[in-house]
Amino acid sequence: MKINQIGEFGLIDLIKKKVFSKDKQVIVNLGDDAAVIKSSPDRLLIFTTDTLVERIHFDLDYFTFEEIGWKAMAANLSDVAAMGGLPKYALVTVGLPPSIQSEEVLSIYKGMSQIAQKYNCKIIGGDTTLVQKDLFVSIALLGEVESEFLTTRSGAKEGDLICVTGELGETQAGLEYLKKHGRKNLSLVRKHLRSLPRIHEARILAKNLKINSMIDISDGLSSELFHLTEESGLGAVIYEEQIPISPKCVKLANLMNRSPLSYALTSGEEYELLFTIDKKDKTKLDRINKKVKFSVIGEMVDRRSGVNLIRSSGKVRELKKTGFVHF
Amino acid sequence: MKINQIGEFGLIDLIKKKVFSKDKQVIVNLGDDAAVIKSSPDRLLIFTTDTLVERIHFDLDYFTFEEIGWKAMAANLSDVAAMGGLPKYALVTVGLPPSIQSEEVLSIYKGMSQIAQKYNCKIIGGDTTLVQKDLFVSIALLGEVESEFLTTRSGAKEGDLICVTGELGETQAGLEYLKKHGRKNLSLVRKHLRSLPRIHEARILAKNLKINSMIDISDGLSSELFHLTEESGLGAVIYEEQIPISPKCVKLANLMNRSPLSYALTSGEEYELLFTIDKKDKTKLDRINKKVKFSVIGEMVDRRSGVNLIRSSGKVRELKKTGFVHF
Repeated sequence: MKINQIGEFGLIDLIKKKVFSKDKQVIVNLGDDAAVIKSSPDRLLIFTTDTLVERIHFDLDYFTFEEIGWKAMAANLSDVAAMGGLPKYALVTVGLPPSIQSEEVLSIYKGMSQIAQKYNCKIIGGDTTLVQKDLFVSIALLGEVESEFLTTRSGAKEGDLICVTGELGETQAGLEYLKKHGRKNLSLVRKHLRSLPRIHEARILAKNLKINSMIDISDGLSSELFHLTEESGLGAVIYEEQIPISPKCVKLANLMNRSPLSYALTSGEEYELLFTIDKKDKTKLDRINKKVKFSVIGEMVDRRSGVNLIRSSGKVRELKKTGFVHF
Repeated sequence: MKINQIGEFGLIDLIKKKVFSKDKQVIVNLGDDAAVIKSSPDRLLIFTTDTLVERIHFDLDYFTFEEIGWKAMAANLSDVAAMGGLPKYALVTVGLPPSIQSEEVLSIYKGMSQIAQKYNCKIIGGDTTLVQKDLFVSIALLGEVESEFLTTRSGAKEGDLICVTGELGETQAGLEYLKKHGRKNLSLVRKHLRSLPRIHEARILAKNLKINSMIDISDGLSSELFHLTEESGLGAVIYEEQIPISPKCVKLANLMNRSPLSYALTSGEEYELLFTIDKKDKTKLDRINKKVKFSVIGEMVDRRSGVNLIRSSGKVRELKKTGFVHF
């Protein structure tokens, strides 16, 4: 079967079953945002990789080289945030078409360095290779997390509150605006161009709460919510009224005559954190709301109920795994 | 300047100067085969990445998908061997064109798994992405080495003996034969298709000798010799008579009417180890010759003498950095 028929998730399932190794030192592997390796009794290594490919994840018509470097690093840093950890070291591989200028290559590295430095992550090596056509940037990142602060996708419990940091919708709306109108109105699309991973927020959450499950929103709220329910064998219900839609998303949606809610549900590369906690911990959550902006958007329910959105009208809409999927 | 003018090494120099971070926990970084991070007082993490791209490093006309997976993993494992370490965990990224079949993707993973298992390295995750055209495989690998056994490119001393494991020339000759004649005579080209990294040999060398400098031959003997001299600020002289040319290389060279010596000097993906030791340690070296096949091929000399090959005729030939260069 061709892989554009089987899809990325189908392929990952196949690979998971047939290829990936079990190891008692490896606590978490494929199926989560990153692999987690026990390196000492109380210290875990986070090992993750993420790749951006021209004409698949970005287009040089409306992104600068610096922004591409930034994006590639942001995706990797966000995987570490999702595990509750701190990024440490990165290896960077760039696949370079023959026509690229050395200044452009340095711009890619500059974008990566800028965001890596913000989170105290060091680029310590990598690989460069020629490609015939499409530029790509692939990063492998090492991070660390204390055993007690590790957060994973699985572990949500029935009755858990579903929470999300920040505001949603802006990056996908920004991308569509960029595609349609180019770089005319950069302030409106900044979140897409310079996404920030929620490293600090994840640390505050992990240190102050018992996080039952957590994931970063790289493929859209709907899609990530499906991952959480699948990994925990549960269903979920979220409420339209409680979904924090970014004002810029609303503005962009209006400009393009689109639905802000739809953006909020499918917007990828948000890098906001979606997490669940026990209902009892709600007061603890409220206590950190000066440090971390968050919204409670629903709760985990029995698997048989499926994954549903309660519209403001009261109508129930069954959610589909319609976040941004690369295949 | 376009990168096909500046070249891979020029670009790496630029990136090295402008981008890469210093960190007191990072003992070795760009410029060696892998980055080395101090993770505990006596234990070092080896962190490396290597990528193969279709139409740059391989061609689907004469390689199977399984062989491509194998090759990609071999290159990474060999980087760990060059540092005297043991591979532990790998993350694998594959860039997949839309036309590829899922069985073909699994074959890539099968090739990677086969060789990884030989060296007790576990594939624990990674990333899959669509690409418009050219397949690529990028691997990030974590390994370990005890501080006392770490071997690096720099540290060769004037007067050091230059040694190489195994026999040379066969993989490059095999590749050219494959390109010209296809897969007709697989036994002759097996070393190219199923290269083995010298993990065990490196461990024996590191445990039994004081290795002053070491590198794996991924871009050809000439090229790697230049790396060693540059990193140590020295020159080198090697002797044609002492270069161990593989009998299959001689056979292939004869079939194609080419020079076996030229293959031995430029053959990439050999994954044999090139290393230097103090002359005094020659007897120690001889003692391990039942466990590790090696040849002493020359010695490190003053920088001003350059890098020279003494032909069997006695003539001196100045060597060029003519190993396989990707740009």
